[in-house]
Amino acid sequence: MKRLLITGFSGFVSRHLLEYLDASGAESEVLGVSRSQPDFPIDKYRSLRCSFRQLDLLDKPGIDQLIAQFRPTAIVHLASYSSVGFSWQNPVESFTNNTNVLLNLIERVRLLGLPCRILSVGSSEQYGNVDAAFLPLREDGPLCPVSPYAIARVSQEMLSKVYVSGYGLDIVMTRSFNHIGPYQRDLFVIPSFAKQLCAMRYRAAPARLVTGDRTVIRDFVDVRDVVRGYCDLLLHGQAGEVYNLCSGEGTSIDHVIATMQRLLGTEAELETNPKLVRPNDNRVVVGSLDKIRDAVGWSPRIPLQQSLENILEWWRERVLASEPHPAS
Amino acid sequence: MKRLLITGFSGFVSRHLLEYLDASGAESEVLGVSRSQPDFPIDKYRSLRCSFRQLDLLDKPGIDQLIAQFRPTAIVHLASYSSVGFSWQNPVESFTNNTNVLLNLIERVRLLGLPCRILSVGSSEQYGNVDAAFLPLREDGPLCPVSPYAIARVSQEMLSKVYVSGYGLDIVMTRSFNHIGPYQRDLFVIPSFAKQLCAMRYRAAPARLVTGDRTVIRDFVDVRDVVRGYCDLLLHGQAGEVYNLCSGEGTSIDHVIATMQRLLGTEAELETNPKLVRPNDNRVVVGSLDKIRDAVGWSPRIPLQQSLENILEWWRERVLASEPHPAS
Repeated sequence: MKRLLITGFSGFVSRHLLEYLDASGAESEVLGVSRSQPDFPIDKYRSLRCSFRQLDLLDKPGIDQLIAQFRPTAIVHLASYSSVGFSWQNPVESFTNNTNVLLNLIERVRLLGLPCRILSVGSSEQYGNVDAAFLPLREDGPLCPVSPYAIARVSQEMLSKVYVSGYGLDIVMTRSFNHIGPYQRDLFVIPSFAKQLCAMRYRAAPARLVTGDRTVIRDFVDVRDVVRGYCDLLLHGQAGEVYNLCSGEGTSIDHVIATMQRLLGTEAELETNPKLVRPNDNRVVVGSLDKIRDAVGWSPRIPLQQSLENILEWWRERVLASEPHPAS
Repeated sequence: MKRLLITGFSGFVSRHLLEYLDASGAESEVLGVSRSQPDFPIDKYRSLRCSFRQLDLLDKPGIDQLIAQFRPTAIVHLASYSSVGFSWQNPVESFTNNTNVLLNLIERVRLLGLPCRILSVGSSEQYGNVDAAFLPLREDGPLCPVSPYAIARVSQEMLSKVYVSGYGLDIVMTRSFNHIGPYQRDLFVIPSFAKQLCAMRYRAAPARLVTGDRTVIRDFVDVRDVVRGYCDLLLHGQAGEVYNLCSGEGTSIDHVIATMQRLLGTEAELETNPKLVRPNDNRVVVGSLDKIRDAVGWSPRIPLQQSLENILEWWRERVLASEPHPAS
């Protein structure tokens, strides 16, 4: 990966990817693009030469110029409006910012005839409401996407495939399951709980946690394992193929909360808000990691408890650095 | 259908739809939109009140304003970049002009909360490279789209479904097979042959027809049956459901050419141009019409030979009205 373009550069996955690349001495020239400035220093990765360009990926002339100038040899396309909830509120924005941005990128690579390996990141949401008989979810199983976000991701994957089969582009695809880790914003469920529980533990916030349905089962995978998997796929994945990135294990939200409470020593009262329960949510989402393990030898290394410990450590620092809770 | 909005108004399907509505005394107020002016008079449909607005459906503010003003009670969305070949040359334009335009339309209907029945027209291309075991193609069978056009159509259908299930919009979808009839431009294979054969018969053009693979089997359905089916689905189709519009019968290109030659009395020499043979083309595309027949009682009425006769009559007039062939 001589010249690596990372989209969604300011997001938490990108930050972990940079750390992984740096630690493995990748010596890549990295160009990051994102709509917003990164909130981490980009000059601390000693083995990388990082630069950043603020850009909206829907700005087609901007993308065209950027790719023509930088001539990436690899692209990791992390940019995404990845919230299902947002997609229900803003279906058009969700669709264009997931599907059309990918299309703009790969079209420019095609027109320039660049030899460039591209990682197109998708989501376990693509599986949608599949019958329990299809668990664990395999890449060759049915897709029943139910949200605008999920449909955007399926469309993105179909477009990627046709660019491989029809134009010979070098694109590998993923369906990434719930990835968690430090740096993730509290818009998502696990960091949101972690932040609130740390506020209880260290700032004496009221010991009450409002949740959605805690009995649903999800497949959590540490973001540091995920970025290692992305690099493995960039190096050894097969063009035109899609790979689950998952732990292969199902964990209830209840179990996650109980583990975090045990680690922190909190005893928050749990309250279910029916408004947070999504009516057509899948009860169980668990992926099969057979394909990626067989293809590139990847499997996750970081156990869930360690992920949760690291997430809590990160939020502990932030909570302690913040203003005390008014009730404390 | 009190106020009917027709997109792709200047196309040949729209013209047949207007004739059908007029003949059935629909008394609708029709607003047509299209990027190009219609090449037929729109004031001849006595039972309809037709008006036309030239508009690019990617012009989102334009669409928003149009729908807010006209407040359609029904939309027939015929606008499409329907050429597979074009989509390989211009994948981004094909995708946005098929998928994003539909999304712009239905989003505005959603935001305005209009009670409006929408017909979202799709294509048999969505089935793509399916195994012969799945013939005749049924709506609940697998989709393996292989061209940018086909993917745009699958994306459009998925979006339509989520707007029904998630937002309660009233959208019925089709997968329309190869529809043929008078008024169709000679960019498509049947009218192209018809035009050339008429030039041989009436203008003494050289008796040679260059074709692609003539052994492929397709499901041809007369456009006049198709527009009747569209109206049946608008009135009685179930929201969120997709229906094949097909004849249920497979016909080779060879048979179509032979029938036209017999009708005209020509004996053109046939020559296969390997460049016109699409490598990943399906050998056989035949649909099942069980679902639409069971749901709304529709089945085609016009036999293939009659379609071909009418097509040849239409091209005869045009060929005779044109300048004589230089060789004649």
